[in-house]
Amino acid sequence: MSADWFRRRFLPRGPLPAPRPPRPRASPVPYRRPRFLRGSGSSSGPADASRRPDARPVRSPVRGRSLPWNAGYAEIINAEKSEFNEDQAACGKLCIRRCEFGVEEDQEWLTLCSEEFLTGHYWALFDGHGGPAAAILAANTLHSCLRRQLEAVVEGMVATQPPMHLSGRCICPSDPQFVEEKGIRTEDLVIGALESAFQECDEVIGRELEASGQVGGCTALVAMSLKGKLYVANAGDSRAILVRRDEVRPLSSEFTPETERQRIQQLAFIYPELLAGEFTRLEFPRRLKGDDLGQKVLFRDHHMSGWSYKCVEKSDLKYPLIHGQGRQARLLGTLAVSRGLGDHQLRVLDTNIQLKPFLLSVPQTYLAGDCAQYGPTGAPGGGCGCHGN
Amino acid sequence: MSADWFRRRFLPRGPLPAPRPPRPRASPVPYRRPRFLRGSGSSSGPADASRRPDARPVRSPVRGRSLPWNAGYAEIINAEKSEFNEDQAACGKLCIRRCEFGVEEDQEWLTLCSEEFLTGHYWALFDGHGGPAAAILAANTLHSCLRRQLEAVVEGMVATQPPMHLSGRCICPSDPQFVEEKGIRTEDLVIGALESAFQECDEVIGRELEASGQVGGCTALVAMSLKGKLYVANAGDSRAILVRRDEVRPLSSEFTPETERQRIQQLAFIYPELLAGEFTRLEFPRRLKGDDLGQKVLFRDHHMSGWSYKCVEKSDLKYPLIHGQGRQARLLGTLAVSRGLGDHQLRVLDTNIQLKPFLLSVPQTYLAGDCAQYGPTGAPGGGCGCHGN
Repeated sequence: MSADWFRRRFLPRGPLPAPRPPRPRASPVPYRRPRFLRGSGSSSGPADASRRPDARPVRSPVRGRSLPWNAGYAEIINAEKSEFNEDQAACGKLCIRRCEFGVEEDQEWLTLCSEEFLTGHYWALFDGHGGPAAAILAANTLHSCLRRQLEAVVEGMVATQPPMHLSGRCICPSDPQFVEEKGIRTEDLVIGALESAFQECDEVIGRELEASGQVGGCTALVAMSLKGKLYVANAGDSRAILVRRDEVRPLSSEFTPETERQRIQQLAFIYPELLAGEFTRLEFPRRLKGDDLGQKVLFRDHHMSGWSYKCVEKSDLKYPLIHGQGRQARLLGTLAVSRGLGDHQLRVLDTNIQLKPFLLSVPQTYLAGDCAQYGPTGAPGGGCGCHGN
Repeated sequence: MSADWFRRRFLPRGPLPAPRPPRPRASPVPYRRPRFLRGSGSSSGPADASRRPDARPVRSPVRGRSLPWNAGYAEIINAEKSEFNEDQAACGKLCIRRCEFGVEEDQEWLTLCSEEFLTGHYWALFDGHGGPAAAILAANTLHSCLRRQLEAVVEGMVATQPPMHLSGRCICPSDPQFVEEKGIRTEDLVIGALESAFQECDEVIGRELEASGQVGGCTALVAMSLKGKLYVANAGDSRAILVRRDEVRPLSSEFTPETERQRIQQLAFIYPELLAGEFTRLEFPRRLKGDDLGQKVLFRDHHMSGWSYKCVEKSDLKYPLIHGQGRQARLLGTLAVSRGLGDHQLRVLDTNIQLKPFLLSVPQTYLAGDCAQYGPTGAPGGGCGCHGN
């Protein structure tokens, strides 16, 4: 993504084009429940669940089909809010192909070469909104993107320290020293791969949704074990937590319009066109009204972590870019999350104002520690979990 | 500051104007040492210090003229790097005027009214570069800006909870509830005032430097006690630390091109014009050269906290936006800090590329806790300190 691309995509010159109504040009993304739940006593359609939320069953994988690390999973279907469950999950073994260089060859890849595998495990949770399509696509796609991104850097990952050049060639004698001084570790390549995979997956979802005339978005939370380390990557308001006998510790932080206020306000400051004159980027304790005009009221702008007072002008009476508190906080009055996948066509109701420029698909990625702490061989009574919001 | 202002100021259309050579239009900012050091056995001129760094005396306030809270101060003159000491400091009592409303009056301010004072203490350190002028102006000015900003919100500060309207009027019955739900505390107004004061001071310095034909910039680190709380505001790479018998704890974090890499790269991504085709915004372990062309090398862009590999193109051979590691890291090959005051005219040597768009004058502000922990009445053996870098 380049700045030019961003401008062309989100800041068209002249009048904005009318929003395109979704037009199915290919088969829609078929609804299905997470793969590992199949056979757990319910069909794949919406009709399997009672319409009464209190009567809806909690689904778990069938006995004898355990998930990696004996992980558990409980599905609670989106209470009455949608016909299909909008949430999805995926998990499985991750096999990273490692291509070895030929002896005579100093090119990076050989088409014909011996292969080895790095294996890891992958668990992912996708909390959907605006329909199940984005979450289904993410559950089908993200692990492939991740595998591809990891394979692209695997030669760097298997070295003790990532080489400056992926080929392993040392162009300057002090190249290893430069890498050392920057503190670049193998783990940084995994984090970089997770970041790139989320972005690649978001692009795939955008193309697929457009092709199938569907809409929607989802959060994405991934836990991955690789080379003895546990990584957590989070884009959205789902949560990874570590549960131990005496401790419940968060392994991720949430991305909502409230937690990302300064980033979102700053984007509106840089590109006021994104608000089309309909919203104010400033934060006030509540939406202002005519009686507040001329009064000095509490406010915050993008550069402020504290609060101050400003004299209310007419433009301050517009609907706030971020409005509401806690679970009620909404971006442009529409969305409760500020990162995730999908939502490429999402617009504010009855306007042409796009949400996507404010949404990041890049996750925050954490190195959560050694797998021995968490996995089946870890301390008894411990474990980590992910849950939607 | 608005986005339009930023664009007009830093992104002129058409060819860039030639840099204006400094033209003295008013008296230059006179050099002097920190006010509280005067009389400590040295004159105010540069000649008082030996040119040999190892022979330079550490200056302290004269005996009997103690600083607030019995604070100490030691001045070490910029070793051989400049004729004048570029660093400054200031401290003193802060008197915030509180204007009370008249009984019949519902306007915000009365010209004639009884006055009360909120008092606090203020300590500030300014690590100058490119000459002493910005640091001198900051030492003369920042406390006045801070007093003015605090006085502008003092009615909100003396309430138990800041009222939504500074006048205290309650336009909606649930206004206090909105403020409560946002979690806005008195301390947030102090933090907001510190943020605004730094920005106001930066504008004053910009005007004064231009008027006097001088140049330079400085970091700014402030510790302030007010209403029983200690606040630390930091813009730059100076440090506030808490020293206790068994503990040395940082009270601020440093802002350098390295620590603010993502913010700086993102700005260059949004406004590539700022690099004038001379720099690359990407980070590599070292500056690339012709031999690296076509190789896949380690890199990071603005959205990445991890590392990945990219195939080197010709544009990657440009000088990096941020180059070097640790204390050697430089922004645009020029500056070792990424926040501070001044530097309004600073350009990359022999080019018209400005540094100022990348520099933030907004400090990161911390509520460091209750004064009782730190002050003269606090735990024995404890104290907090600030030092330049």
